[in-house]
Amino acid sequence: MSELIVRAEKLDAADELAALRAQFVLDDVVYLDGNSLGALPAAVPGRVEDVVRRQWGALRIRSWDESGWWTAPERIGDLIAPLVGAAAGQIVVGDSTSVNVFKALVAAVRMAGPGRDEIVVDATTFPTDGYIAESAARMTGCTLRPVTPSEVPGVLGERTAAVLLNHVDYRTGRLHDLPGLTAAVHTAGAVVVWDLCHSAGALPVGLDEHGVDLAVGCTYKYLNGGPGSPAYLYVRSALQDRFDSPLPGWNSHAEPFGMRPDYEAAPGALRGRVGTPDILSMLALEAALEVWDGVRIEAVRAKSLALTDFFLECVTAYVPLGRVESVTPAAHGERGSQVALRCGDAGDVMKRLIERGVVGDFRSPDVLRFGFTPLYVGFADVERAARVLGEVVA
Amino acid sequence: MSELIVRAEKLDAADELAALRAQFVLDDVVYLDGNSLGALPAAVPGRVEDVVRRQWGALRIRSWDESGWWTAPERIGDLIAPLVGAAAGQIVVGDSTSVNVFKALVAAVRMAGPGRDEIVVDATTFPTDGYIAESAARMTGCTLRPVTPSEVPGVLGERTAAVLLNHVDYRTGRLHDLPGLTAAVHTAGAVVVWDLCHSAGALPVGLDEHGVDLAVGCTYKYLNGGPGSPAYLYVRSALQDRFDSPLPGWNSHAEPFGMRPDYEAAPGALRGRVGTPDILSMLALEAALEVWDGVRIEAVRAKSLALTDFFLECVTAYVPLGRVESVTPAAHGERGSQVALRCGDAGDVMKRLIERGVVGDFRSPDVLRFGFTPLYVGFADVERAARVLGEVVA
Repeated sequence: MSELIVRAEKLDAADELAALRAQFVLDDVVYLDGNSLGALPAAVPGRVEDVVRRQWGALRIRSWDESGWWTAPERIGDLIAPLVGAAAGQIVVGDSTSVNVFKALVAAVRMAGPGRDEIVVDATTFPTDGYIAESAARMTGCTLRPVTPSEVPGVLGERTAAVLLNHVDYRTGRLHDLPGLTAAVHTAGAVVVWDLCHSAGALPVGLDEHGVDLAVGCTYKYLNGGPGSPAYLYVRSALQDRFDSPLPGWNSHAEPFGMRPDYEAAPGALRGRVGTPDILSMLALEAALEVWDGVRIEAVRAKSLALTDFFLECVTAYVPLGRVESVTPAAHGERGSQVALRCGDAGDVMKRLIERGVVGDFRSPDVLRFGFTPLYVGFADVERAARVLGEVVA
Repeated sequence: MSELIVRAEKLDAADELAALRAQFVLDDVVYLDGNSLGALPAAVPGRVEDVVRRQWGALRIRSWDESGWWTAPERIGDLIAPLVGAAAGQIVVGDSTSVNVFKALVAAVRMAGPGRDEIVVDATTFPTDGYIAESAARMTGCTLRPVTPSEVPGVLGERTAAVLLNHVDYRTGRLHDLPGLTAAVHTAGAVVVWDLCHSAGALPVGLDEHGVDLAVGCTYKYLNGGPGSPAYLYVRSALQDRFDSPLPGWNSHAEPFGMRPDYEAAPGALRGRVGTPDILSMLALEAALEVWDGVRIEAVRAKSLALTDFFLECVTAYVPLGRVESVTPAAHGERGSQVALRCGDAGDVMKRLIERGVVGDFRSPDVLRFGFTPLYVGFADVERAARVLGEVVA
């Protein structure tokens, strides 16, 4: 077995991203849950302290202008943009992913126009997307059509208004074909909304390149923004004039401080704003995004695939045959940055893994999830995680 | 003029709430903008540091359970409850005020039942309430009827589904008759939604006592929760079973970690949750609410009225006759905790006041707003503010 330890050492030594680990607060735990809550970037505590003590405590109301609070949603949106392949001016940060799914889906139906009264949604999606899609359908007079992602192309037609898809399945770690499915939706004349929660920050998304219409995502997984940090909304620039939000708050008004009774939507990404932005979490996220300075997302993807390949190899070597089964696709083109292992006693196994310093998570009824954040997970972590798993299930 | 200075000293000496000022981070500035962004409570910076460094940095994902992150929205809702006269289990914290207005108004229309297709809204309301009401009307097939608050009783009828009102007008500081208007709405068989942004934390609200159906409010004004801190939603317990949210996220599911494709609403106030709560801001708010320990809201109200009375008296004494005009009602029963003065060159006057260490704000086109937070504003502050105003406009 020591051959894998030696391999891990060599892979870590050759890793061009290895130095980035120092930009995070980590300990001896092997943290494979960054696909649920990213680790703390070292720059965050000092920034948050400044926001609380100086910006709020000393400048108080003046900070809306002097500390750039008011423009934070679009400024931080522009920091996320290159990570998801978007030019500036198309992303705004704020609200939760659920709320942004609602904005995007209702706006998508309105863009699709009359005669199109069906919303197609991934039936295996993260639950909130399905619940919100159901509400959006109910409130726009549409029918909801839940299908598996592979069935999507077959159900598209003249009645399709909008299609909501997850880029990576949160349970299985399967990466869906964003370019191909986007093209299929467009061929049918419908509008596509992608949920990037489990892909942004882990692999190239290429929103602009693939002509995606609308996208949403959280910032607390691979973007390490902190617990419940604000989500974001992407609206392709060509569609912004037609983005008709179901949540037209004063922050998305063309002249917010005019305090006028009639609503007039702001131009550009600002149209996705709603109410007063949550500044403490927003500026913690801004500090967290500094770790991406000079990092190429292609290098992140290459390391992510190498980590997950190596993990699967180590699992095969260390875990008794048949004890666990990977439900994550083996093909690189179909794999996100996590490995999900089906395991009969998964809840109990994960508990014991965590007791032994290997942190992943459990998804009911029988899935062990291991997320690999290429910015701070190394190959030695991967080898250790698989080795401890082998010991725990033996 | 020194008589007013002597009076201020005596009033401060007799003020039972005066000691609370030490629980805030303040300086020599007279801060009369707590009705826009409350000052920093001294307990907040240390708490936020603990949340960032220990709860997120060291415990990471474990904190959702071990640090009580998951249950924070309802736990902190129960801290706000006594301040607005609500028994526990009816308030949940999260999202922005705008988003909560949307939840409340759509749910109100659904509760009102068929045949009722009109939403009445205060035409002079804070803009976001009007914009969101328009969207709620559009999405529920209702007609929006904007009227001035005094016209509300006259327009209520069999078609009225829901009525959205502000407890205190953000510009004029006028306090509306919550008990009387609530009763009128109920007599008409409709559902009332109150926006408490400018009253909660400054005066008794009595939600339970007056049978209010639904209410929303921000936490960054008189509750001092910090810039953009999460808002809250009150749903009267008797109506919770019928609260049908237009934003049914996974956090409001009866079994959120069951990750089931079918939505089943949680019982109680939890039904108002949507997506993952914003933890940094949420727990900063929790620390901020500690200043209310042992504070009676009736004492806060008494001091608030004394402060605004004294301010009006000082303005009369110091400001040349006719230079400004109060648009805030003189009657105690109609006054919130702010004084709004109409002044031709209000924008310029406020700029000069701020340069001289007196911070209020300006609302277009001609209103100077001065907010009085009884927890940390004293009578000497009030005298100084009026005196500087007199010098500035002379």
